[in-house]
Amino acid sequence: MKALLAPWERLCASSAVLRFVDINLRGVGQVMFMDNPLSGLLFLVAIGWGSYAGGVPQVATGGIVALLASTVAAYWLDVDRTDLHAGLFGFNAYLVGLALPTFLAPSPLLWLYVALGGAVSVVAMLAIARVCKTWGVAALTAPFVLITLLMLLAARAFAGFGTGALPVSALITPIDPSAANPLQFGDFVEGVLQSISQVFLKGNGLSAVLLVAGLAVNSIPAAVLAVAGATVAVVTAHMLGAEDALITGGLLGFSPLLTAIALGCVFYPPSLRVVLYALVGTVFTVILQGAMNLAFMPFGLPALTAPFVVATWLFLLPGLQLKATSAVPVKATS
Amino acid sequence: MKALLAPWERLCASSAVLRFVDINLRGVGQVMFMDNPLSGLLFLVAIGWGSYAGGVPQVATGGIVALLASTVAAYWLDVDRTDLHAGLFGFNAYLVGLALPTFLAPSPLLWLYVALGGAVSVVAMLAIARVCKTWGVAALTAPFVLITLLMLLAARAFAGFGTGALPVSALITPIDPSAANPLQFGDFVEGVLQSISQVFLKGNGLSAVLLVAGLAVNSIPAAVLAVAGATVAVVTAHMLGAEDALITGGLLGFSPLLTAIALGCVFYPPSLRVVLYALVGTVFTVILQGAMNLAFMPFGLPALTAPFVVATWLFLLPGLQLKATSAVPVKATS
Amino acid sequence: MKALLAPWERLCASSAVLRFVDINLRGVGQVMFMDNPLSGLLFLVAIGWGSYAGGVPQVATGGIVALLASTVAAYWLDVDRTDLHAGLFGFNAYLVGLALPTFLAPSPLLWLYVALGGAVSVVAMLAIARVCKTWGVAALTAPFVLITLLMLLAARAFAGFGTGALPVSALITPIDPSAANPLQFGDFVEGVLQSISQVFLKGNGLSAVLLVAGLAVNSIPAAVLAVAGATVAVVTAHMLGAEDALITGGLLGFSPLLTAIALGCVFYPPSLRVVLYALVGTVFTVILQGAMNLAFMPFGLPALTAPFVVATWLFLLPGLQLKATSAVPVKATS
Repeated sequence: MKALLAPWERLCASSAVLRFVDINLRGVGQVMFMDNPLSGLLFLVAIGWGSYAGGVPQVATGGIVALLASTVAAYWLDVDRTDLHAGLFGFNAYLVGLALPTFLAPSPLLWLYVALGGAVSVVAMLAIARVCKTWGVAALTAPFVLITLLMLLAARAFAGFGTGALPVSALITPIDPSAANPLQFGDFVEGVLQSISQVFLKGNGLSAVLLVAGLAVNSIPAAVLAVAGATVAVVTAHMLGAEDALITGGLLGFSPLLTAIALGCVFYPPSLRVVLYALVGTVFTVILQGAMNLAFMPFGLPALTAPFVVATWLFLLPGLQLKATSAVPVKATS
Repeated sequence: MKALLAPWERLCASSAVLRFVDINLRGVGQVMFMDNPLSGLLFLVAIGWGSYAGGVPQVATGGIVALLASTVAAYWLDVDRTDLHAGLFGFNAYLVGLALPTFLAPSPLLWLYVALGGAVSVVAMLAIARVCKTWGVAALTAPFVLITLLMLLAARAFAGFGTGALPVSALITPIDPSAANPLQFGDFVEGVLQSISQVFLKGNGLSAVLLVAGLAVNSIPAAVLAVAGATVAVVTAHMLGAEDALITGGLLGFSPLLTAIALGCVFYPPSLRVVLYALVGTVFTVILQGAMNLAFMPFGLPALTAPFVVATWLFLLPGLQLKATSAVPVKATS
Repeated sequence: MKALLAPWERLCASSAVLRFVDINLRGVGQVMFMDNPLSGLLFLVAIGWGSYAGGVPQVATGGIVALLASTVAAYWLDVDRTDLHAGLFGFNAYLVGLALPTFLAPSPLLWLYVALGGAVSVVAMLAIARVCKTWGVAALTAPFVLITLLMLLAARAFAGFGTGALPVSALITPIDPSAANPLQFGDFVEGVLQSISQVFLKGNGLSAVLLVAGLAVNSIPAAVLAVAGATVAVVTAHMLGAEDALITGGLLGFSPLLTAIALGCVFYPPSLRVVLYALVGTVFTVILQGAMNLAFMPFGLPALTAPFVVATWLFLLPGLQLKATSAVPVKATS
């Protein structure tokens, strides 16, 4: 499959327009660590479909607007070309662009806000990556989480935004036990699929299949770990007694599956020991997702992928010997 | 203007008392990055007047008490003399001393609290500056924000303090659209002036003029950027639909104007590219101020200059090529 | 007293089972910085008694389960042997294991949760220690605080846990002045004793005496500073007008006394200047405890030893000249 990309890479090297397209596609691919324009294209189609099918075309559009803004900003800021060409300045922006129109009502001001968010996510990426580099750890989606939370919170302070789709600020109450139901096979499959597509803030089964295909064209281990991570998350959440609707909607699985991919094949070379370590990390991310969903409640904010970021940092920072540095892709560590 | 300071500096070099006075004046000046005793004197007069005119003389007095406590503490802790002589241990203490009596009722216990806060702000400055130095970034007013928020929050836990002037702890609600009014010229000018004086927690037009004068005697670009930053903040806040009373009271402009000065002439050498970069940073600080005003609501706390600190760190951490290190004042990077 | 340990150490060197026991005992001892199995044994007895006398044997059991899980995890992760043998991977786990059953109802799921928490606390210790090492500072009990807060918060999201003993999520209100009473001698002594035993989340006078004995067998200065720190905390809290029941229950003294030990004899060599510095740090920790008790209120969480961690980091980070690096125990800085 990768042989197909050699002629494309030659075309990009000789055309600034194609290079620009390539950077943006890789930016989308990097949401799930894929430095591959074909993965990015499949992800883009998956989210386009999920957004159209869900009756919210502004979400897919927002993603593209922020993505383009980030690439322009990255050129203007004269960032490192290797990182830029690998799509490392696009994935956080793309997620910012999906998130803002998911929670805020469309308006001309919103589009300016989305473009600003995409551009500033490049600054945030540079800032967070520089700090993280001190300990050899990647910025992950921390820039997306930081910028989106701040911009969503701010939207409530300004009358120019419609904030009706944001969660309501509330005190924290324990789950109603009747909301937790035993595991059923149909729900189980739905929970796994929705977990995969919720990485891009959309719950859609066909999108999930396209996303797994997008992973598989670049990395079979990543595709396997995505499905396995989502499965572990759904089972763990059920065993702990999580709210059934959250599990089935994929809202407790998207962060853990990202942890599974990150720990299982991106930052450590696959091995039995790494699989066990990633398994503990994935289970712990489910607990973190439960914790953070509640922690953000008084602020009326969604936790986004914060649980993935915190859990993956926690499990990467020790710099354990399971980590064979030679196997770490240079792109993903920036 | 700076020629006037040469004889004064010679006098300070030969008199411990004058050196002590000089350190404290520079400490006040450093609130707005001015390593100049004349700036400090003008700032001190500005705040003295604003405090007296507002009927709260304890605010100006608190500032001086904390400032003196910080200088004594800095000597006792045997800090770096170059930093000490530049006033780098005074500005956070001075702000702590202004803030505590702004929100807490006067009492003998309060004065002890103010002195303790001033002294501990030196420890916080040393701690935060050491961490920040890892990435070549200044501590800014982070020590002031940290110490003041903790001491204000604590005041509610102890019966010895009157905490009636603190904001009430509340859940977060979206702005009432009727609170956002179209831009009017009188309000506009008032918003710009109040933004400048609110850097020192006071809304007063004459104080603002004295503060701009204090900037101008040391740095014309800083004076221009203060007014320009406040103007950008007021216009941005109006365009986003912020609460009119907040804008006019200067409460959405003081952090952005500090960002404008920091990015526009303190940490980067002025250039067209830097001006554009500082403009984006200033606009983003308005958004951050909106976000943080709400984020602190459940804790019943004011955001203080936290938005300035976060935005400026975010825009400095990338260590971009716009930064010509030779132009960075040594004092301000500590 | 230390002469007694030489034969024990020889036995441990020749027996994997005794080494395992030694590691776990030192792990308990390190809760109060004591790298000594006899201290650990006395602490273990103290908490066993406090737990039994309080009618909550599951608390002492939880501590042991998490401690064993952490030692197994540390072996599996192949951590540094010197640190492992000094008990540095046990003390956070032991505290996690005491805390979870203090706030959550016993159940088979809880025991799994406690074991997972103990194991993950090793990962958190490695992660936080690595970051802290950048500035030569110890991780202290930050791993315990982080893991416990996340797991307690998460417990409310899952129906499998009984969370009735957790504080209720609430907005912040100022103290009712009538709750603050003048200092009485009986209350004073009780407050000091309870402060000591609350380091391990238990209020019990006999436990406090055993804990002081456990300190004294390894370090007389540590024992003196524990009592002195608790005394300073109780007096300061009374002077500030804290709630009488909190003071008498030891809930405002356990963090300050840890600060007193850490600053007074663990990380700085004892001297008059260090005593003064530690005194200010101890007083400031009381203020921090007041602040953080309120800050965690909207999340319905206890502050645990977070005030000790924040205050001690703040007072250690400056790396002042009072610090004679040769006197810093190697074990405690990891």
